[in-house]
Amino acid sequence: MALAGLMQGGIASAQAPAARTMAEILAASQPSDWRPLDPENTVYLELASGRVVIELAPAFAPRHVANLRALARSGYFDGLAVMRVQENYVVQWGDAEGKRPVKGAARSLPAEFTVAWTPAIPFTRLPDVDGYAPEVGVSASLPAARDPKAGRTWLAHCYGMVGAGRDVDVDSGGGTELYVVIGHAPRHLDRNVTLVGRVVSGMELLTTLPRGTAAMGFYEKPEQRVPLVGMKVAADLPPAQRSRLEVLRSDTPLFTELVESRRNRRDDWYKVPAGHIELCNVPLPVRQAAP
Amino acid sequence: MALAGLMQGGIASAQAPAARTMAEILAASQPSDWRPLDPENTVYLELASGRVVIELAPAFAPRHVANLRALARSGYFDGLAVMRVQENYVVQWGDAEGKRPVKGAARSLPAEFTVAWTPAIPFTRLPDVDGYAPEVGVSASLPAARDPKAGRTWLAHCYGMVGAGRDVDVDSGGGTELYVVIGHAPRHLDRNVTLVGRVVSGMELLTTLPRGTAAMGFYEKPEQRVPLVGMKVAADLPPAQRSRLEVLRSDTPLFTELVESRRNRRDDWYKVPAGHIELCNVPLPVRQAAP
Repeated sequence: MALAGLMQGGIASAQAPAARTMAEILAASQPSDWRPLDPENTVYLELASGRVVIELAPAFAPRHVANLRALARSGYFDGLAVMRVQENYVVQWGDAEGKRPVKGAARSLPAEFTVAWTPAIPFTRLPDVDGYAPEVGVSASLPAARDPKAGRTWLAHCYGMVGAGRDVDVDSGGGTELYVVIGHAPRHLDRNVTLVGRVVSGMELLTTLPRGTAAMGFYEKPEQRVPLVGMKVAADLPPAQRSRLEVLRSDTPLFTELVESRRNRRDDWYKVPAGHIELCNVPLPVRQAAP
Repeated sequence: MALAGLMQGGIASAQAPAARTMAEILAASQPSDWRPLDPENTVYLELASGRVVIELAPAFAPRHVANLRALARSGYFDGLAVMRVQENYVVQWGDAEGKRPVKGAARSLPAEFTVAWTPAIPFTRLPDVDGYAPEVGVSASLPAARDPKAGRTWLAHCYGMVGAGRDVDVDSGGGTELYVVIGHAPRHLDRNVTLVGRVVSGMELLTTLPRGTAAMGFYEKPEQRVPLVGMKVAADLPPAQRSRLEVLRSDTPLFTELVESRRNRRDDWYKVPAGHIELCNVPLPVRQAAP
């Protein structure tokens, strides 16, 4: 039954260095290991079934994030719908009919596929090889990549990442149409689309939606679409209506220990430690804030 | 709106060598590029919502596959249930109550985490680095890894792969409890659990199931479990009741071209070809056989 062994207490062997499991590490975390979501950098995708909480990434896509806030604040998304759910790929929502006017925001923006890397952008580098980028790591609890020679950094298309759909023109996106990765990471999309953030809560509301049966997972009939109640900036809601979530910081010794504990699992269920962790397998824990 | 560009015709630039897209390659495939599923190596997981088709992997787990056939043929799975659906991880089914007798099959077996590699096991190697294994590739349309020094090969925990759950004892699995990967590949499970095959049709029947809210995604209440109609070997059904599916062969020049077309996408939606493909992103196409 203990398929994953995730919940088991770890028992270090006599030879191995003392190593804590993920559960032990999180149990030992201090309040300073966590940070609350910034309400100005958080949007809520509201469905009839519940709330999907998305943390935005202004360091990587400043113009798209600002535009997304403006779109949300203008009510752009209210009453639009999820129109595409493609198995092992993406959920996508926006204006399926192409009739919704854009007010007080841009319909499209210059691409923000990569940004210049500066020391102001935190980067906890993973020790392992990655096939898609010279360096990979975690930046403010987001999976990211870096090319030191080119001096560029970008977000990675891991499970739960949110991007701004575009047409063939690189500058045709802007946030009016958004997608979330719901399958194995399509990392070949990295540097080809602007990523704007990550789902930190409510993924199951998206992943359990019926798959669309038309090409690319689009719903064949308008009545199959899943209506959005709307999308709002958390800061615009009264505090009592906000989701009170905290994200594990990724710039702490505790986080580094957590990554290592997942690179080489030592609880007694695992027989062959991997000695490696793929970027999109790095845990990025989220918890309810204490009341 | 062409988020993936998958359905677009490719337009090679003047500089680039002529390269076909996946759609073009599949459209140009010959009957000999495909193979029908062997009914003796195919099992059907029957749910009220439909059929999940699983191709077994006797080259990698001969004893588990034989045992799984025996379990299916004894009616072991009939009326059991899916008892665990964990977001971004696995769906698992079996005997949640631990009361079902095992007749004519083994309850547990020696682990088959890896097998000796011989030239009889096909292996179309990928050209790129992998963090979890010295070599990765595709063996009879299954994602696989190989360690030439150790002379061992094993299947990889990609999306849709099916494994035999076990307890802490390595030899405690046997196929009475099965799981399917429904999220980003948990490759750290490689060489820690016996994989027995791959879902080739019906993944959406599993991925859309409600997530369990108890630890590790188990359903909290027995009535939340999703009943199985049963699990049958395809060969035991009359031909008219079988799913007539074909799998793209992975030992052909066409398959090699397909992999390369995905390593470097050249349709006009993509601006930065990845120059890499992660093992679990390799397409393993399945189609309906011609009537």
